[in-house]
Amino acid sequence: MDPDALAKAFVEHYYSTFDTNRAGLANLYQESSMLTFEGQKIQGSQNIVNKLTSLPFQQCKHTITTVDCQPSGPAGGMLVLVSGNLQLSGEQHALKFSQMFHLMPTPQGSFYVYNHIFRLNYA
Amino acid sequence: MDPDALAKAFVEHYYSTFDTNRAGLANLYQESSMLTFEGQKIQGSQNIVNKLTSLPFQQCKHTITTVDCQPSGPAGGMLVLVSGNLQLSGEQHALKFSQMFHLMPTPQGSFYVYNHIFRLNYA
Repeated sequence: MDPDALAKAFVEHYYSTFDTNRAGLANLYQESSMLTFEGQKIQGSQNIVNKLTSLPFQQCKHTITTVDCQPSGPAGGMLVLVSGNLQLSGEQHALKFSQMFHLMPTPQGSFYVYNHIFRLNYA
Repeated sequence: MDPDALAKAFVEHYYSTFDTNRAGLANLYQESSMLTFEGQKIQGSQNIVNKLTSLPFQQCKHTITTVDCQPSGPAGGMLVLVSGNLQLSGEQHALKFSQMFHLMPTPQGSFYVYNHIFRLNYA
């Protein structure tokens, strides 16, 4: 599978899980995983999912605008930069965001999120 | 030096060089470096600088809004996500951008850009 298609498939899977079953994101992180969410640093799958599931909104819908990816080095990792919109339930305007994922291969042949940085892009 | 301060210092140096002496950015890339600029993939220091110096504007000014960084793994690399505004000479409105840098250490104790992804965030 070519890296761009793989990155796009991962991102679609990530946001679809986020929007329908946020707790299910735990499978995509490991203990070494890092999330920086609006400047707050969090480490480890359970802490990351606790953060994501406690965000102050229940319903949301991510729409992807761009996905770019590059190989991150000899360890087989993949860097993905995503831009898009986040529509929160009951809000009139969508929020713009940028996210960066560093995906690392698992022994089982899939990927987990090793680095993840999220920022809203305020107008 | 703590990683956040290092990342911020790098980003400030990068944009200051971009805005005053774009050709000088060649020193921050190596032959293995990759740039994805608005979806276009370019590899190698000279090719990257050729792209950046041939962008269709002469004068510009970057303003940084956010800088986040994380260690990228055992090789001592550093991932940096930047958001900000790009003001082009003669244009009324600034453009919003997101950029991701993957910095790798050099034997001399500084860093070079191994991965770089740039996107404008259109309204």
